[in-house]
Amino acid sequence: MSGTGLWLIGARGSVATTAVVGLLALRAKLVEPVGCVTERPEFAGVPLPAWDEIVVGGHDIVHTPLEKRAEQLAEAGLVPHRVLSAVASGLRAVDAHIRDGYHPATHTGPQSDAVARLVGDLEAFRAAHGLDRVVVVNVSSTEPPVPSVPEHASLALLEEALSDPSRAVLPPSSLMAYAALLAGCAFVDFTPSPSVRLPALHELAVSKGLPYAGSDGKTGETLLRTVLAPMFTSRALRVRSWAGTNLLGGGDGANLGDPEQARGKLESKARGLAALLGEGVTAPLHIDNVPDLGEQKTAWDHVSFEGFLGARMNLQFTWTGLDSSLAAPLILDLTRLVAAAHADGQAGPLAALAFFFKDPVATDEHRFAQQTEMLTKWAQDLS
Amino acid sequence: MSGTGLWLIGARGSVATTAVVGLLALRAKLVEPVGCVTERPEFAGVPLPAWDEIVVGGHDIVHTPLEKRAEQLAEAGLVPHRVLSAVASGLRAVDAHIRDGYHPATHTGPQSDAVARLVGDLEAFRAAHGLDRVVVVNVSSTEPPVPSVPEHASLALLEEALSDPSRAVLPPSSLMAYAALLAGCAFVDFTPSPSVRLPALHELAVSKGLPYAGSDGKTGETLLRTVLAPMFTSRALRVRSWAGTNLLGGGDGANLGDPEQARGKLESKARGLAALLGEGVTAPLHIDNVPDLGEQKTAWDHVSFEGFLGARMNLQFTWTGLDSSLAAPLILDLTRLVAAAHADGQAGPLAALAFFFKDPVATDEHRFAQQTEMLTKWAQDLS
Amino acid sequence: MSGTGLWLIGARGSVATTAVVGLLALRAKLVEPVGCVTERPEFAGVPLPAWDEIVVGGHDIVHTPLEKRAEQLAEAGLVPHRVLSAVASGLRAVDAHIRDGYHPATHTGPQSDAVARLVGDLEAFRAAHGLDRVVVVNVSSTEPPVPSVPEHASLALLEEALSDPSRAVLPPSSLMAYAALLAGCAFVDFTPSPSVRLPALHELAVSKGLPYAGSDGKTGETLLRTVLAPMFTSRALRVRSWAGTNLLGGGDGANLGDPEQARGKLESKARGLAALLGEGVTAPLHIDNVPDLGEQKTAWDHVSFEGFLGARMNLQFTWTGLDSSLAAPLILDLTRLVAAAHADGQAGPLAALAFFFKDPVATDEHRFAQQTEMLTKWAQDLS
Amino acid sequence: MSGTGLWLIGARGSVATTAVVGLLALRAKLVEPVGCVTERPEFAGVPLPAWDEIVVGGHDIVHTPLEKRAEQLAEAGLVPHRVLSAVASGLRAVDAHIRDGYHPATHTGPQSDAVARLVGDLEAFRAAHGLDRVVVVNVSSTEPPVPSVPEHASLALLEEALSDPSRAVLPPSSLMAYAALLAGCAFVDFTPSPSVRLPALHELAVSKGLPYAGSDGKTGETLLRTVLAPMFTSRALRVRSWAGTNLLGGGDGANLGDPEQARGKLESKARGLAALLGEGVTAPLHIDNVPDLGEQKTAWDHVSFEGFLGARMNLQFTWTGLDSSLAAPLILDLTRLVAAAHADGQAGPLAALAFFFKDPVATDEHRFAQQTEMLTKWAQDLS
Ligand SMILES: NC(=O)c1ccc[n+]([C@@H]2O[C@H](COP(=O)([O-])OP(=O)(O)OC[C@H]3O[C@@H](n4cnc5c(N)ncnc54)[C@H](O)[C@@H]3O)[C@@H](O)[C@H]2O)c1
Ligand SMILES: NC(=O)c1ccc[n+]([C@@H]2O[C@H](COP(=O)([O-])OP(=O)(O)OC[C@H]3O[C@@H](n4cnc5c(N)ncnc54)[C@H](O)[C@@H]3O)[C@@H](O)[C@H]2O)c1
Ligand SMILES: NC(=O)c1ccc[n+]([C@@H]2O[C@H](COP(=O)([O-])OP(=O)(O)OC[C@H]3O[C@@H](n4cnc5c(N)ncnc54)[C@H](O)[C@@H]3O)[C@@H](O)[C@H]2O)c1
Ligand SMILES: NC(=O)c1ccc[n+]([C@@H]2O[C@H](COP(=O)([O-])OP(=O)(O)OC[C@H]3O[C@@H](n4cnc5c(N)ncnc54)[C@H](O)[C@@H]3O)[C@@H](O)[C@H]2O)c1
Ligand code: NA
Ligand code: NA
Repeated sequence: MSGTGLWLIGARGSVATTAVVGLLALRAKLVEPVGCVTERPEFAGVPLPAWDEIVVGGHDIVHTPLEKRAEQLAEAGLVPHRVLSAVASGLRAVDAHIRDGYHPATHTGPQSDAVARLVGDLEAFRAAHGLDRVVVVNVSSTEPPVPSVPEHASLALLEEALSDPSRAVLPPSSLMAYAALLAGCAFVDFTPSPSVRLPALHELAVSKGLPYAGSDGKTGETLLRTVLAPMFTSRALRVRSWAGTNLLGGGDGANLGDPEQARGKLESKARGLAALLGEGVTAPLHIDNVPDLGEQKTAWDHVSFEGFLGARMNLQFTWTGLDSSLAAPLILDLTRLVAAAHADGQAGPLAALAFFFKDPVATDEHRFAQQTEMLTKWAQDLS
Repeated sequence: MSGTGLWLIGARGSVATTAVVGLLALRAKLVEPVGCVTERPEFAGVPLPAWDEIVVGGHDIVHTPLEKRAEQLAEAGLVPHRVLSAVASGLRAVDAHIRDGYHPATHTGPQSDAVARLVGDLEAFRAAHGLDRVVVVNVSSTEPPVPSVPEHASLALLEEALSDPSRAVLPPSSLMAYAALLAGCAFVDFTPSPSVRLPALHELAVSKGLPYAGSDGKTGETLLRTVLAPMFTSRALRVRSWAGTNLLGGGDGANLGDPEQARGKLESKARGLAALLGEGVTAPLHIDNVPDLGEQKTAWDHVSFEGFLGARMNLQFTWTGLDSSLAAPLILDLTRLVAAAHADGQAGPLAALAFFFKDPVATDEHRFAQQTEMLTKWAQDLS
Repeated sequence: MSGTGLWLIGARGSVATTAVVGLLALRAKLVEPVGCVTERPEFAGVPLPAWDEIVVGGHDIVHTPLEKRAEQLAEAGLVPHRVLSAVASGLRAVDAHIRDGYHPATHTGPQSDAVARLVGDLEAFRAAHGLDRVVVVNVSSTEPPVPSVPEHASLALLEEALSDPSRAVLPPSSLMAYAALLAGCAFVDFTPSPSVRLPALHELAVSKGLPYAGSDGKTGETLLRTVLAPMFTSRALRVRSWAGTNLLGGGDGANLGDPEQARGKLESKARGLAALLGEGVTAPLHIDNVPDLGEQKTAWDHVSFEGFLGARMNLQFTWTGLDSSLAAPLILDLTRLVAAAHADGQAGPLAALAFFFKDPVATDEHRFAQQTEMLTKWAQDLS
Repeated sequence: MSGTGLWLIGARGSVATTAVVGLLALRAKLVEPVGCVTERPEFAGVPLPAWDEIVVGGHDIVHTPLEKRAEQLAEAGLVPHRVLSAVASGLRAVDAHIRDGYHPATHTGPQSDAVARLVGDLEAFRAAHGLDRVVVVNVSSTEPPVPSVPEHASLALLEEALSDPSRAVLPPSSLMAYAALLAGCAFVDFTPSPSVRLPALHELAVSKGLPYAGSDGKTGETLLRTVLAPMFTSRALRVRSWAGTNLLGGGDGANLGDPEQARGKLESKARGLAALLGEGVTAPLHIDNVPDLGEQKTAWDHVSFEGFLGARMNLQFTWTGLDSSLAAPLILDLTRLVAAAHADGQAGPLAALAFFFKDPVATDEHRFAQQTEMLTKWAQDLS
């Protein structure tokens, strides 16, 4: 496969910048593909774009140069200094493909105007690089859930409302998903934002023959929960409570430190635990903004469970991850896999990618081992 | 299926006593079968003996009455006081079926004499209760590994050596496995002792059409390792070190506090980690005897791993389990499943039971999710 | 010293019941005084009431017999079964001295009526047992902070408002403190409730020559914080964040699971950390109700700090305590020490008892080692 | 005070290099004195040498340039990149004062020859810089304990044995301490090696009017133990077991990974715990070499304790420190304080410096708060 575009919404964020640095470093063979799932032996024969067949562009609403962001990430320990200097010119090249995103607070006029501009950006990018296809990946700041309105469930009603200059019927993430689909691009949501999950957008994706995937990348506490919870089930042990606390800094910490912004994330995490263990588990969960932790995320979970004859036992874990290091290679994996699905003619939600997400579309399978198997089988069938 | 015998070697130990108390409590419907894997919906149609079709006897080398042991376990929080009083008469009944085990330090004469006595005990038990079959389960104190000698690899040589009054060619666990097989009983080793793993005993099991399973019940740190390690692999993350410390009291703590006795256990744990993650992982591991913890076992593991672009991250967990509570329902599960395998005509090592063991016979599959699937498929095929 | 009354507000709660069981067990020499600070060698010569010189009564608003509560605590692992049976008759004797407390939701008429009844209860108790003095200890459910009103700052205004049948000028804890002081009793607040901390009550205590102590017993996470924070200071290490999560069940958990009720507790904890480390420390703190933990309280703290040349390091701890076991012996210690202070003629707030409290009266000293020294010196000067 | 020499044994090690980088950075006001105890307000009036009055030299047996070592430490996150470039020329200057140490494996001839050379190095250093005094600090690799011989207890016998070319009566650390004292230098042992703790060397220090301090810098697990253990004592709680595991990489990890080398360290840690809590505490302790952790040291401790009525509770902590970052500022503090003691005319062991050490000389006081007070009082009395 050749000529795959990766269009990052939130292109100047930590995850996006780490993904771009990593792609450049992989291309230059400066690093091994640690954390890249599609480089595992199971994916050997799958028709995926190679590292040097992927061209990157994106939207953001800030203007800090990518190179500057990469330096900050190097200070934070996410990017080795030797890699930084080697990819500097590559970063400047990608920077030239980043366009202004849709900013809900400064936009004026009907949302359809914004859509037209975003679609134009995507089409120009595809044309300029002669790309076979473009995968749009949302790694912008998490938005809160939105109350459902009839226009979210009908493409016809939605289109009408978009041209009303007095309304902002779609949250930014959904506006961007809409524009991506209109422009004929596959879509991935790595955040818990509403984005492509509105029924009207599902309708659009299917009608345009476009695949989509999401939501909310699974890289830390939830990854562990989907690995550990099935163990208790298989061993017939009864989980009574599963409490969690997440400490994080960085842009994501500042955003999720706001309880309203965190609501979507907390809901997506809670849905997963209930799907795994049923409803009766006490599961308090916190996300705290701790700026001094920088890009580090520390999660503590305490699981209390009951065994034979009522015995009370517990498991605690502390996960200390660099969130963007965990997310970035998955962004590259998703780009490859969704591009391959598109090439294969698949449309609509890709349940087989549940492996990557806290709140997977089109499936209730949260057990990580089962998700791994689903992914591998699906990928091996791609052609 | 009716009339299954469960013969416990180490019948007065913590695991054995908890298993017996639990069986009696399940039979009387005093407790729910929490921790019993064979009560999960997946096993609904499998032809397993019911709780009241299992008759228990065993060997031990101490004489503390089971009721007394059960009281100690109640003090330690393993058995609820209300259950204790309800099962007292049942415990006395089982106590009447416990015979003196083979004691290496006090036995005189050739080992074949001991074998004859042990075989006699098993045959008398089967006859007295009109049992269809007997499963012998080793839950006696862990023994160290033994140096291999030619007699361990040939049944003919072994038999000769057994009648030599000046030799003790078999360690106790193997002597007991030998006697069990001779008496036509299926055998399960829940400890890391040599027992049935000698080639000569494999030969005997196969020739007599008897199934066997083992070794070393997987109930804590290792269970978690076989759940967590595949996550790192699936996500292409590179584990660099996996350090572990186990604190435990009780009889098992006292025994494993001795480095020589602990050797087999440490080796079986290390083999598992290497099978899961390859050889390059630094993996210091300790077992400490901490008497004041009583029946509680606390394990701390620290996993250091590398992600994208060389990022260094870690996971720590602390597991606080009541070891015998975790082991006891598995003893009942194994009895049922091995009895069913025997009824089904299976002979030799049961690889499908890897789910239960740290160091499974006849398979290198250590990944817990895969073991769960192997077990379920195998059980559903039993008839 | 002879004839000291201990009057427990919340006499049927976990802390109170454990304290009474413990007092009876100590008196009968069934247990050693583990956890009793006043039994340490440093207190050898201090004129304190002996265990059998303390008579117990109290108020509560529920009627569960103490013996029943003690059984529940035995089930929860707080009280050994052998102790339970030995103290049963003693518990029934104490039960006979428990009176109905002030219930804000059911009381009608002016608060002064309630005061009169509470004072009557205390005077009757003192008279019936010929007691030299009575120490009233508040271990009832935590109340939220109250907005300050002028009547809280002036005894004269307060008295007027108390007779107004249309007002409830005092929260229950303060009403009880008021009644205690009126009845000539010393007062201890083991909770973070407003109680005796209103200026008008301070005025009353001083004018009646009565000592008081508080607030909010220090038995877990905060104890550790006041031990650990001074280490960072002494070593010139800069704490950047100190995050905490508390999981607890029982009556206290149910009450503090309500954010409004928890407010006072969270504020008293936060004040302490700021006093120890200054204002610049990020310190998110949570209290979660996890019913299945029962009487167990588990706290996880994550401390991130900076060292030489900007190095970033961290400390985590997990504390697993039985809250009432930790609190109960301190209730006995406080009774003894406050009785001795009363006998010694001390009046007003007892700063020297800061050792026992999260939010000590009349001092800003939160460092545990310094508090220990203050306590010891003060006690040795008592006569 | 002016002209103080700091002579580092093990001058090219992690601790030494970090101390030198830090001293240069402090002098240039590039960093704040975080971690420097002598910069705390309590030390304001104490007559200590200023940062720019300290001149550094030392011994080592390897030849890696300091600048190179500093780069490695920057890679490991111990030294910020911006500091590194600013101190490069300063590092080269110190490098010029580093001499070949005594290497036990390559030295030939009587040990007295080595002594003469080491003394010469120290005298030349003092003369070249016109120093008032020199403090020799041992931060070389830890040595195992040595069996006691009569020569270690008598200066006369020792001197005789030193000239015997067929003997190596002193371990390297003691040889260096001996040379330091002969040359009229104060001595600090930051390691658990035998060094100055032999009676003959004590005799020499006293006779020459020289102060000395040690042993074994207290910077992690033991620091926490001496902070936490007194809490249990003050609260009359009974510690039953205190288990510990230390994971570390770097040069220290490689050295202490060898059980023989670790023996001294383990003994010094165990002595401390026994002094704090008495002899009855089960206290297994491990040091594991985990190379991938680099300069990071992670310690996990599990404390099991008993409270009122036999209640069983526990505390766990995980400390993640950069060992050399914690040690380096203390090396500077010790240099200043021991120089001041020397100027003040103090000779022999400095018990008041117990604050800094796991196994303090001339005192059994291990409680950190008490050590802090001892230090502060002592320093404030210096003149
Ligand atoms: N492991 C992980 O890092 C992980 C896992 C799951 C989900 N996520 C999600 O990924 C997202 C990115 O995380 P991050 O750490 O890179 O955050 P970040 O704050 O560093 O980056 C977000 C970027 O989005 C940009 N942005 C905000 N609004 C925008 C808009 N309307 N249009 C275009 N760009 C916009 C911001 O300017 C910023 O550059 C977050 O939503 C996070 O919750 C991350
Ligand atoms: N979760 C678990 O509890 C778990 C997991 C894996 C393995 N195991 C193994 O199970 C075994 C039992 O554990 P436990 O906690 O009950 O130990 P335990 O010490 O309480 O019981 C062992 C019993 O074996 C008896 N015994 C010793 N030598 C014997 C002999 N020669 N013949 C007959 N009986 C003999 C002892 O008298 C004792 O009653 C141990 O080997 C342990 O390592 C337990
Ligand atoms: N370690 C500790 O246990 C600890 C530490 C600090 C503070 N405290 C505080 O001690 C108090 C008691 O804790 P607990 O675990 O025993 O709680 P609990 O819920 O078991 O007991 C509280 C008792 O107070 C009674 N009560 C409520 N309102 C009352 C009123 N108006 N008058 C009289 N009685 C009343 C309740 O009926 C109950 O019996 C709580 O406020 C808790 O926050 C406990
Ligand atoms: N927090 C801490 O770092 C800490 C705390 C307590 C004690 N210590 C002790 O401090 C010492 C230094 O620790 P490090 O991390 O710098 O170790 P390191 O291995 O990095 O440095 C030790 C240095 O000593 C040198 N050396 C070895 N033998 C020598 C000899 N005979 N003469 C002169 N130099 C010699 C080595 O070449 C090396 O450069 C160790 O003994 C360690 O146990 C360190
Ligand atoms: Na995440
Ligand atoms: Na508490």
